[in-house]
Amino acid sequence: MSNRVITISREFGSGGRTIGRKVAEKLGIPCYDAELVQKIAEESGYTAEYVEEESEHTEGSWLSTVLSDRSMGLTNQDKLWTIQSKVIIELAEKGPCVIVGRCADYVLRDKADCLNVFIHASLEKRAERIVKEYGETDDTPEERVKDKDKRRAAYHRFYTDMKWGDAKNYDICLNSGELGIDKCVELICSLY
Amino acid sequence: MSNRVITISREFGSGGRTIGRKVAEKLGIPCYDAELVQKIAEESGYTAEYVEEESEHTEGSWLSTVLSDRSMGLTNQDKLWTIQSKVIIELAEKGPCVIVGRCADYVLRDKADCLNVFIHASLEKRAERIVKEYGETDDTPEERVKDKDKRRAAYHRFYTDMKWGDAKNYDICLNSGELGIDKCVELICSLY
Repeated sequence: MSNRVITISREFGSGGRTIGRKVAEKLGIPCYDAELVQKIAEESGYTAEYVEEESEHTEGSWLSTVLSDRSMGLTNQDKLWTIQSKVIIELAEKGPCVIVGRCADYVLRDKADCLNVFIHASLEKRAERIVKEYGETDDTPEERVKDKDKRRAAYHRFYTDMKWGDAKNYDICLNSGELGIDKCVELICSLY
Repeated sequence: MSNRVITISREFGSGGRTIGRKVAEKLGIPCYDAELVQKIAEESGYTAEYVEEESEHTEGSWLSTVLSDRSMGLTNQDKLWTIQSKVIIELAEKGPCVIVGRCADYVLRDKADCLNVFIHASLEKRAERIVKEYGETDDTPEERVKDKDKRRAAYHRFYTDMKWGDAKNYDICLNSGELGIDKCVELICSLY
């Protein structure tokens, strides 16, 4: 098994982004995360902020947008999905890399040799992490984590028709809250 | 994290039982699988065959038994669940070990320091495996795998109220069909 692309899906606050970066650094390959947003922005003509807003990270009411606008044809989010998919495939074709989020596992399912990873942790550990690491100041970090979970799961479900967090969709799922970030990095690298 | 008990939940045909045995051998600790059935049989007074039949491995129509008999009080399966739970807790208290199946992750959730593992593989790989390794001669091994999946999922759901195969219920989930049995063994041992 010669995996060329590592896709990392992750629950909000689980440290999946950090794990992705560390894995890429250790393996000496690029990690696409913020860079991906930048490329999608360039291709779409939208600003990076808008791309971020309309993608899985959205805080806004994209669900209502989806429900209300889709009858009128493609929504902006649908258009971004198409561009995002194209950019992900191009990056994967360029060479070995780590791609964090954005349903890359699904987009690349018939296009590249992937190691598909899912990172999760308990609600408590993730709430603790977003306060400590991301400097979140929300009074109810658990609620914020739950809200993000719901949005990502709905986005994932809508575009991939796969159940978010179902073990069978991944090659390896890791509980970063129990195993620790560094152990997760080590395990993923050992599979590359 | 000093894990003392490794619980292995697994899809039928994924090689989880083999992985459990190899992990235990490598770590020099006991693996409870068939031995567990034997102990439950001794405690309950039933034969090992009956225990096997009425537990997660059942081929019979336990679901209909559950539905029809529970109104009359505890079913045999409920009684076996109680004995099984007691035996699992006793074994875990004896010392470090590997326990395969039987919802040990759930039974030990507040009782022992566990590393909870889930092993899965694609339907195709599992069907291939049951024919090759277990000598299954069924004309439609995929159907048999699917049937077993349904029974285990229903049993698990009924007694634990947790979703079978949901990544968040485990510390690590591994696709043995993609990673291979030996790699799974190596990864689990490296976490102990």
